[in-house]
Amino acid sequence: MAKYVAFNAQHAIDYIKNLVTKDGYDLFDPEQTLSAYEFGDGNLNLVFRISDEQSNSVILKQALPYARCVGESWPLTLDRARIEAEVLLNHGALSPDYTAKVLHHNPEQALTILEDLGHLQILRSAQINAEQFPLLAQHVAHYLSYTGFYNSDFYLTAQDKKAKVSQFTNPELCQITEDLFFNDILREHERNNYPSELQSTVSKLQNNAALHLAIAKLKAKFLSCPQTLLHGDMHSGSIFVDQNTTKMIDPEFGFFGPVGFDIGSFIGNLLLNYCAQNARISEFVSRRNYHSHLLTCLQESYTLFEQQWLTLIAEQTTDNNLKAAGYGEYFMQQVLQDAIGYCGTELIRRTIGLAHVADIDGIEDAQARLNVQHHTLALGEQLVLNAHTCNNKEAFFALLISQLN
Amino acid sequence: MAKYVAFNAQHAIDYIKNLVTKDGYDLFDPEQTLSAYEFGDGNLNLVFRISDEQSNSVILKQALPYARCVGESWPLTLDRARIEAEVLLNHGALSPDYTAKVLHHNPEQALTILEDLGHLQILRSAQINAEQFPLLAQHVAHYLSYTGFYNSDFYLTAQDKKAKVSQFTNPELCQITEDLFFNDILREHERNNYPSELQSTVSKLQNNAALHLAIAKLKAKFLSCPQTLLHGDMHSGSIFVDQNTTKMIDPEFGFFGPVGFDIGSFIGNLLLNYCAQNARISEFVSRRNYHSHLLTCLQESYTLFEQQWLTLIAEQTTDNNLKAAGYGEYFMQQVLQDAIGYCGTELIRRTIGLAHVADIDGIEDAQARLNVQHHTLALGEQLVLNAHTCNNKEAFFALLISQLN
Repeated sequence: MAKYVAFNAQHAIDYIKNLVTKDGYDLFDPEQTLSAYEFGDGNLNLVFRISDEQSNSVILKQALPYARCVGESWPLTLDRARIEAEVLLNHGALSPDYTAKVLHHNPEQALTILEDLGHLQILRSAQINAEQFPLLAQHVAHYLSYTGFYNSDFYLTAQDKKAKVSQFTNPELCQITEDLFFNDILREHERNNYPSELQSTVSKLQNNAALHLAIAKLKAKFLSCPQTLLHGDMHSGSIFVDQNTTKMIDPEFGFFGPVGFDIGSFIGNLLLNYCAQNARISEFVSRRNYHSHLLTCLQESYTLFEQQWLTLIAEQTTDNNLKAAGYGEYFMQQVLQDAIGYCGTELIRRTIGLAHVADIDGIEDAQARLNVQHHTLALGEQLVLNAHTCNNKEAFFALLISQLN
Repeated sequence: MAKYVAFNAQHAIDYIKNLVTKDGYDLFDPEQTLSAYEFGDGNLNLVFRISDEQSNSVILKQALPYARCVGESWPLTLDRARIEAEVLLNHGALSPDYTAKVLHHNPEQALTILEDLGHLQILRSAQINAEQFPLLAQHVAHYLSYTGFYNSDFYLTAQDKKAKVSQFTNPELCQITEDLFFNDILREHERNNYPSELQSTVSKLQNNAALHLAIAKLKAKFLSCPQTLLHGDMHSGSIFVDQNTTKMIDPEFGFFGPVGFDIGSFIGNLLLNYCAQNARISEFVSRRNYHSHLLTCLQESYTLFEQQWLTLIAEQTTDNNLKAAGYGEYFMQQVLQDAIGYCGTELIRRTIGLAHVADIDGIEDAQARLNVQHHTLALGEQLVLNAHTCNNKEAFFALLISQLN
């Protein structure tokens, strides 16, 4: 196999031409002339759109061996391209409607050819503009419950499961999460990033012993609880949407971890947007309506996620022991508490850690932005601290509402 | 490398001669004539003792590609010889005094050359004869706490830990444990083995919904909680002893699992012997004294195990998050409850499952044996059911004593 070379647009065209003519891939008519351009942010990956004369197009995504956005010359394994493609293939087989489709994968070149989803919007941008997606909750719940259940001990044989855990061992990308979600936020760290006006609040948070203990438990589960094959990076920037469609992309952080992590991250991003809208939508009724839409979306996501998990456990569990009466409910109660905790860490780390969200950072008025940051930080802290008190989703929703008003 | 061939005594001698002369291994004087004989039970492994004219000797252990003792022609991966040697090397580096020493390992031939421990006794045989080993508790506690801690998330970097979890993925041997500890005992199964007089008690146990739920939780942790590199088969037949020495052997079931599993299995075997002695030692004072020795050994093992873990957590933890105040104590409380549960499943499965213990099966009087079986079954059930109520080891010891009298 050819040695890894970072592509330019011409490489991308040549590569695809070759695939189509030599290997018979059904991507383009071999007679067509192709054109290509790169439009990724260039930090982690190269992303090319390759089109023919009829405007048929595909995406060619190639991993770069470093991540400029995460830290100065932070080298990053090219194996993440394999992980990403293999997660998409695994999840695509289980929830095909909601997973971006892989057309071709080449691990040596760290590249994947994907269906072009350019007609859709990134959820984060759309939600910053207060757009509503009535099917989003239902789609995300299906994606997370089906990919979650069918990669879990409930369904897989222990031998298959162990093989998959090894296949999706993802130490370098997991370490980024381990650092950013759990470690950095609890101490002074050069990667942290927040305005000086937040310092006294941050110091208080970092001196909260109960928070340290609760986050230790979440970190330990992130490290040693391979319950299912997670997406691993379920924020609003990893979801393409329109009114009828939802497609998950970019699972390069995928690994076997606790079921609550993905749904917690997703909900955390809904809440980041919720808090940000206090500074974005000035008109009261519009803001109330959008808030109400987000809260409904959150509650519906979690409710459907839990319902579908419980139905799958009841109907599809293959492990004799895990069929025990009450075990599914016990398991889902742990998932709920984990999800609330991880949701809380997402709120905290997006406020004071390295990687922020445009929902908040894009707020122009500094004081309004600061108010939102105080809110997301306090909300995150309360969720982490009180997760263990929520024995059911109603208790979680009540806790949330008490903190949002 | 040469293809796998099951050895005879002459193969063993030739192999060692070759090692000593060609590879310069310091096993024997090359001038000496060697002799060898096979003395394994032949079910899982061939075990040769190879001696020179001065009675210097080593053990050559070779895995067979099947396990006659577990089931009719149950094929078993030769990879278990690699696992066993690599666990011994890993544990031997951390607790050298209490781990059998590996002198050479050849994965292709599935063979390992080990120090000869033939001057020691197998703990099970010695305890059947009511022999006492005053240092056993201290040695086992050191072995389990040191090998446990230094292979855990407290100490290893997440990247090292993930690599080791993959290295010690042991699906075939784990499946034997998954079947025998958790699955078979809760239903009618051809592998189960108990006298018909036990049937009504077994049926009642198998219809206990609370037991099914508690065992589901233990099974789920066995499947998806890679806390540390376990020995995986810590019964009294895996321990060589004399008055001053304790050496762990045979960790072919080793894998990354819950910390409570090994200590629970060990304690379970002490309790199997405790119950068996009711039928073995007829004289009251002798029986009381030996019971008291076993109970002291059990309490001392667990107490030292926990103390050493807590000391290592306090002094040697490298993970910033897991240094949180109170986390070590929380972790060890979970370990205690897991240990009690796994101890209970060991008692149940050794009474009604496929693999029994000579402590009980060797009792000649059928009625006396049956009484012991009733006792171990009831004790096992109570431990599994009440594990979650034990918030500290004192509660566990009190529970035990209430069930032993």
